[in-house]
Amino acid sequence: MPGYTAPTKDMQYVLHDVLKITEAGIAGYEDLDRDFTAAILEEAGKISTEVLAPLNPVGDTQGCRLENGIVYTPDGFKDAFGKMQEGGWPAIDMPEEYGGQGLPYLMNTAVGEMFSAANQAFTMYQGLTHGAASTILAHGTEAQKQTYLPKMVTCDWTGTMNLTEPHCGTDLGLMRTKAEPTGDGTYRITGQKIFISAGDHDMAENIVHLVLAKIPGGPEGIKGVSLFIVPKVLVNEDGSLGPRNGVSCGKLEEKMGIHGNATCVMNYDGAVGYLLGETHKGMRAMFTMMNEARLGVGMQGVAQAEVAFQNALAYAKDRLQGRDVTGPKNPEGPADPLIVHPDIRRNLMEQKSFVEAARAFLLWGSTLIDRAHREDDRDADGLVSLLTPVIKGFLTDKGYDMTVQAQQVYGGHGYIEEWGMSQFTRDARIAMIYEGANGVQALDLVGRKLGSDGGKHVMAFFDLVKSFAKEHGETDGMAEFLEPLKRASKDLQAAAMYFMSEGMKNPNNALAGSNDFMHLFGHVCLGLMWARMAETSLRALAEATEDPVFHETKLATARFYMARVLPITATHLARIQSGGDTVMALDAASF
Amino acid sequence: MPGYTAPTKDMQYVLHDVLKITEAGIAGYEDLDRDFTAAILEEAGKISTEVLAPLNPVGDTQGCRLENGIVYTPDGFKDAFGKMQEGGWPAIDMPEEYGGQGLPYLMNTAVGEMFSAANQAFTMYQGLTHGAASTILAHGTEAQKQTYLPKMVTCDWTGTMNLTEPHCGTDLGLMRTKAEPTGDGTYRITGQKIFISAGDHDMAENIVHLVLAKIPGGPEGIKGVSLFIVPKVLVNEDGSLGPRNGVSCGKLEEKMGIHGNATCVMNYDGAVGYLLGETHKGMRAMFTMMNEARLGVGMQGVAQAEVAFQNALAYAKDRLQGRDVTGPKNPEGPADPLIVHPDIRRNLMEQKSFVEAARAFLLWGSTLIDRAHREDDRDADGLVSLLTPVIKGFLTDKGYDMTVQAQQVYGGHGYIEEWGMSQFTRDARIAMIYEGANGVQALDLVGRKLGSDGGKHVMAFFDLVKSFAKEHGETDGMAEFLEPLKRASKDLQAAAMYFMSEGMKNPNNALAGSNDFMHLFGHVCLGLMWARMAETSLRALAEATEDPVFHETKLATARFYMARVLPITATHLARIQSGGDTVMALDAASF
Repeated sequence: MPGYTAPTKDMQYVLHDVLKITEAGIAGYEDLDRDFTAAILEEAGKISTEVLAPLNPVGDTQGCRLENGIVYTPDGFKDAFGKMQEGGWPAIDMPEEYGGQGLPYLMNTAVGEMFSAANQAFTMYQGLTHGAASTILAHGTEAQKQTYLPKMVTCDWTGTMNLTEPHCGTDLGLMRTKAEPTGDGTYRITGQKIFISAGDHDMAENIVHLVLAKIPGGPEGIKGVSLFIVPKVLVNEDGSLGPRNGVSCGKLEEKMGIHGNATCVMNYDGAVGYLLGETHKGMRAMFTMMNEARLGVGMQGVAQAEVAFQNALAYAKDRLQGRDVTGPKNPEGPADPLIVHPDIRRNLMEQKSFVEAARAFLLWGSTLIDRAHREDDRDADGLVSLLTPVIKGFLTDKGYDMTVQAQQVYGGHGYIEEWGMSQFTRDARIAMIYEGANGVQALDLVGRKLGSDGGKHVMAFFDLVKSFAKEHGETDGMAEFLEPLKRASKDLQAAAMYFMSEGMKNPNNALAGSNDFMHLFGHVCLGLMWARMAETSLRALAEATEDPVFHETKLATARFYMARVLPITATHLARIQSGGDTVMALDAASF
Repeated sequence: MPGYTAPTKDMQYVLHDVLKITEAGIAGYEDLDRDFTAAILEEAGKISTEVLAPLNPVGDTQGCRLENGIVYTPDGFKDAFGKMQEGGWPAIDMPEEYGGQGLPYLMNTAVGEMFSAANQAFTMYQGLTHGAASTILAHGTEAQKQTYLPKMVTCDWTGTMNLTEPHCGTDLGLMRTKAEPTGDGTYRITGQKIFISAGDHDMAENIVHLVLAKIPGGPEGIKGVSLFIVPKVLVNEDGSLGPRNGVSCGKLEEKMGIHGNATCVMNYDGAVGYLLGETHKGMRAMFTMMNEARLGVGMQGVAQAEVAFQNALAYAKDRLQGRDVTGPKNPEGPADPLIVHPDIRRNLMEQKSFVEAARAFLLWGSTLIDRAHREDDRDADGLVSLLTPVIKGFLTDKGYDMTVQAQQVYGGHGYIEEWGMSQFTRDARIAMIYEGANGVQALDLVGRKLGSDGGKHVMAFFDLVKSFAKEHGETDGMAEFLEPLKRASKDLQAAAMYFMSEGMKNPNNALAGSNDFMHLFGHVCLGLMWARMAETSLRALAEATEDPVFHETKLATARFYMARVLPITATHLARIQSGGDTVMALDAASF
């Protein structure tokens, strides 16, 4: 059975040595000193390793089942859910007035990585609840907040997001679900929603569905969509539970992975719904917390890569097969461990250099979100909005690739379910799809974010790279990290310039390169993270750190990334600059 | 349910227009005229579409089951197997004297792609039989051939290959299975083999296991391994079936994919075995047909990419979602089909430009194998031996990636099993692992094949590219295809030079780049295929072909590959030239 050990030390390094969070000047961060975050991370790591990880293969093997209208989660899920509730984990960043702990979003990301790595399918139940509660927090009336939030913060009630219908996913303007006003201020919701994660289950006494629907007579398309609260069990005025509402799970989907999470077809048959926010402003309300939600999915990609890497690494050290080509490393044994072989190293280093930089990127992005919300900093908001599609799209694409590479280390044992490596791959696959498929992320990046506010935010990003390079240009040992970063950043700028000049002439010239641009951008971000970590670790070594091996390892991994991974930016640029013609040349019929 | 249509027209194009097989001067090829191959391909396509493809999801859903020592295949497999036998498909390239049709290996590859695309798990039963029969053909005594081949050629008896043991996969020198001589010329085989594809099942009256084992007292390690024929049911002198042999399936593995194929733990408990070939020369005997076997696995990668692409394309044309950014393409409908969107096109073009060139590469490689065997051409043998790890490793890596991309076109529908896209991905994954994991292919390429015969074969490959470029350098319209090819080929030469100079100093400098080299080589091969197809189609257009759209489409797809895919060779070269230091820097303990 695969294992999981929380990367607490690495997180502490990023939070305190690299990001120096207590000095960040963000409200609430002043409390996040080294001991405090260590205490949280260690506790979260403990429950991840001891409670969540052992249930991961159980959830995969058993899946959920629908019997007589009731959805049952896999054995052990309910108990574990209770333990998570006891620990207060589901909403550590929710406001204290509703029962949360009021911690920054940053800490939610850090512990979320652990929970997701240990058991993604399980963690989604509380993740969806978090998203729904955040939306109610942002758009609900005070009465709605009082009714739902205290229960959702504890996960006594969980939440869901209902967007997709059989004929529409990305293009929600085609939606058919109807919300008929009853005259008493409530609505009757009728329609079918699909792919509803955590749509129904046996771990909570109520489920609060947030449902997008159209009020008849409203504007056509996406502008006529409103958002509704539709509880599974109606809530009485005194807060007690009343009768069942007209909503039920019609079917559970059979999926490639995340079997432990109930992916439901939800049928709304005149269910009572309460408008959340304004009429016809449903999309805006649903997507208020989009940066957080998408960062959370990017985090899932990294989390699966991390747990897959941990296991691949352990296997590579343990499994004896073949001999080191430069001479036996385990001469007493029948063979050397796999890790002596250069191509296994290459594989492991790609994983390691990805997950560590990706983690730093996620945590940095989370500080931007906190700065935007807690300091009302519009520049931070603009920057993280720009980076969000990169975080979501690039990190889930690469995270998936890394789970595939980790699986490869096991040879045939990676393909059989017994070792658990297949599950990491199958679970990681969904993150490239949901919360906006990665093609949509690339489109959002190039078609919307890149030029938003006159390109101000992308310029801010370039300035950030430039000023970092300038600040440390003379620092001993930094040149080998700064030069590749500057080269890659130049490729990114050239790509952005290409879009500006050629995209004007024909939008296809830009959009045909959107996926390459997202990846190019992602590599520059990870390159920046490695340069920052290199600077941090060089400083630590110069200051005679007590843990030189840790910092030397960071430098070696940074070197690998710069030499072996970052050169790909040139290829992405070449692809982008080849334009849209070769992409769009064929008639659909000629394919 | 996903569909499959055999790419007969494209295969005919490659066989006759590009490769001009009847003029190839290979024994047996003179009969392969256009009508003859069309007849075969159409029949194979028919059984693939009508019989094999509908069983593919059945096999995936049901899997195999082991009950009271008997392995049952999924519903319908046995009937379909009978139909394949009736059609004489299992061994069309086997010698006529044993009941085969004596066709070139080339035709086996072409129809094999269809069968694998339609149902990989099913096709493996006959594929393994083919491999085992070929080995007996090459190394068996006349009596062994007479006993086993007529039955195996018809698949009345199927075959297996038994290499792996729990503690050894790649490093077979660690093998523990024993073969004790009984004194009467037979052996008693004892041990456990794992991951035995088609190891047991209910579709044949006998199963002929080829088993690697050590004769006690023989040389240590890999040099003490011999190969044995171990039939499931012993064969009497008159060829009738006798009692069961001491071999049984102990367990079926739960796998990520190819559920319809029984992957068995095989227990040998003093089973009667017959030496095949010479004592202690088992590895050589087992790997005699290695080029064919590995090309066959490369073909599986392409086959899954092809079927996934077909379905993704159909979905992209059918699914209405969003609007073309340059103006509606389906103004009467509620939305435009997915295929209008540039990133969907980019995705589809990547798939299309891969599968078509990969198919040409496989068929060209097959002609080299035929030339080697049928004309005893050692240069052809050397060249295809060099290309074999590229065909196996690169085409299965990329083939898998393409199935993932095809899945992405479906959004959420790609993740649920109902649409079948997940199965293509899960099935394709195994081809990167078995028949020598792709890391081993890369090692074989760089560590063995590149320098074999003093580098003669890689020089021959470069000459082939050069002479093609020279021959068509003045041809109207060829420059745009030849320039990128020459540039990519130069990258490959530079990489080979790097290995020669730096690999001498430290083998890790070469081996750390082995995976990149395999991919670089693969891209140059596909680039060469596209250049050859471009030349063919330019010629057809110049000669006023009756099907200009087909040839224009080839040119457009070639342009896409040259502009959008081939530039990656520069990155692979940069990675290779960065050397082994960053890859090997860390102590195993520091990871």
